[in-house]
Amino acid sequence: MSKVQSLRVIRSVAEMVKYRRQLASAGKRLGLVPTMGYLHQGHTSLVKLLHGKCEVIAASIFVNPMQFGPKEDFTHYPRDMARDVQLLAEAGCELVFNPSAGDMYPNGFQTALEVAELSQPLCGRFRSGHFRGVATVVLKLFNVTGCSVAAFGLKDYQQSVVIKQMVCDLNLDVDLVFGQTVREADGLAMSSRNSYLSPEERQWARLIPQTLMWAREAVAAGQVNAGRLKTEVEARLSSDPGLKVQYVEVVYPETLIPVEVIAPSAVLAVAVFAGKTRLIDNVLLEAPLETSGRA
Amino acid sequence: MSKVQSLRVIRSVAEMVKYRRQLASAGKRLGLVPTMGYLHQGHTSLVKLLHGKCEVIAASIFVNPMQFGPKEDFTHYPRDMARDVQLLAEAGCELVFNPSAGDMYPNGFQTALEVAELSQPLCGRFRSGHFRGVATVVLKLFNVTGCSVAAFGLKDYQQSVVIKQMVCDLNLDVDLVFGQTVREADGLAMSSRNSYLSPEERQWARLIPQTLMWAREAVAAGQVNAGRLKTEVEARLSSDPGLKVQYVEVVYPETLIPVEVIAPSAVLAVAVFAGKTRLIDNVLLEAPLETSGRA
Repeated sequence: MSKVQSLRVIRSVAEMVKYRRQLASAGKRLGLVPTMGYLHQGHTSLVKLLHGKCEVIAASIFVNPMQFGPKEDFTHYPRDMARDVQLLAEAGCELVFNPSAGDMYPNGFQTALEVAELSQPLCGRFRSGHFRGVATVVLKLFNVTGCSVAAFGLKDYQQSVVIKQMVCDLNLDVDLVFGQTVREADGLAMSSRNSYLSPEERQWARLIPQTLMWAREAVAAGQVNAGRLKTEVEARLSSDPGLKVQYVEVVYPETLIPVEVIAPSAVLAVAVFAGKTRLIDNVLLEAPLETSGRA
Repeated sequence: MSKVQSLRVIRSVAEMVKYRRQLASAGKRLGLVPTMGYLHQGHTSLVKLLHGKCEVIAASIFVNPMQFGPKEDFTHYPRDMARDVQLLAEAGCELVFNPSAGDMYPNGFQTALEVAELSQPLCGRFRSGHFRGVATVVLKLFNVTGCSVAAFGLKDYQQSVVIKQMVCDLNLDVDLVFGQTVREADGLAMSSRNSYLSPEERQWARLIPQTLMWAREAVAAGQVNAGRLKTEVEARLSSDPGLKVQYVEVVYPETLIPVEVIAPSAVLAVAVFAGKTRLIDNVLLEAPLETSGRA
């Protein structure tokens, strides 16, 4: 396939910097989709989002050790570079940046970025240091690639908010675009970690998007009491003995602070274990106009 | 003076970003001397260091609240913008970036940069959060101004090492140049904070550079035992009842880890109070060749 042949893979920071300078000299803007590989349609939808926003579309593939906790799945995280390159080329990506961990974090590396308040709640409560690792690697990827625009998926909702704040606080010259969560036919949010699920766990996991959709409809129908909604969501998710809820939160979309009354909108975010696999998902809740405080 | 008239002062982040983009479009590089104002020859020597390294030389004047502790001298830090602009213009600086604190740290600001190991020793032991504030504001200033090169003084030795590490760790595309400490006729390192000193304290303070020069000569003459050197330096500084030693350390120049035997070189760094004024200074120690381990 001709598109595959035109995709360039860069494996070192030095080579990427060289290429970035060539692009800058030519006045060409680079758009970046940062990924950890093992790609799915969620990622390729982000590549497509960048069409028309830059002259060169790039994806980075880097399983970032800094964003994994010591007991998390860094070593087992799925990898399939050949398939990833194929998928990216088909989506219209022209460049893959795939550095080594030693090149990104050489001996003596000791700098970390902290986005304080937004890193604390939700996943931050259970994944200490995770968003520090995310923010740091994203800043490095922005700097190494010199991207003018970058795309992230809203499935990792807290990540999207953390990165937006970082870009604002550090005066970074990078436009952000966010892609809607892409879902399987039965609603499960696409995730590289879905590959961990056994057929049985995969069945259980369907209850996660079903419950989020139920909640979305309940709120649209007038259930704007966040506490009651949380209780009901937890009960529904816990009704399947194969699932174990880590958290259910209803938060303000910008600040991630817990909401009491949903008006006009809030984000329902959940983390749920299906067996040993931790899955996250979220949905925007919108109160009906008459209870939104705007009526 | 015509140079004064040609100096442009930019007071907002938005205007600086606009100007940065104009420079970039014109293919012009900007060189930056980040300062907190109340300038002296140490600062103007840094402006001069940038001649020939960029098309536009800029200085920032920003007393950065984030790098001051709650009990430190942020509110009393000396300010004299008119004189600063005059000195900068005379040194060949063409642009002053002088933003407000509210523009640099708007409501909701929550991002901080941490250069872990290098921020801990020396001043870091006594100024908790200081280097986090320094690293964060320097990164912001780099991003806002889009500088290609930046100059820092070696009088703030630990700061120079922290910034060097940050630039490396974050893959920043900024060349760093470092200027030697500029001293008064009697050896005292120039510092905006020298303005705090009473005539009597100013006399006491002479002992600081005298002691550092003594140490430099002692090491050159063969005193390579860092522990004994430290003891002697502390004793000499403490011989004046007007001075109070905060720390005396002999460290590796790159890592700031304490040295036991000076071979081939080390940095002697001190912080000393003259009255209520905290002064820092440092000197490079070089062992004689026959004891340097290279002979």
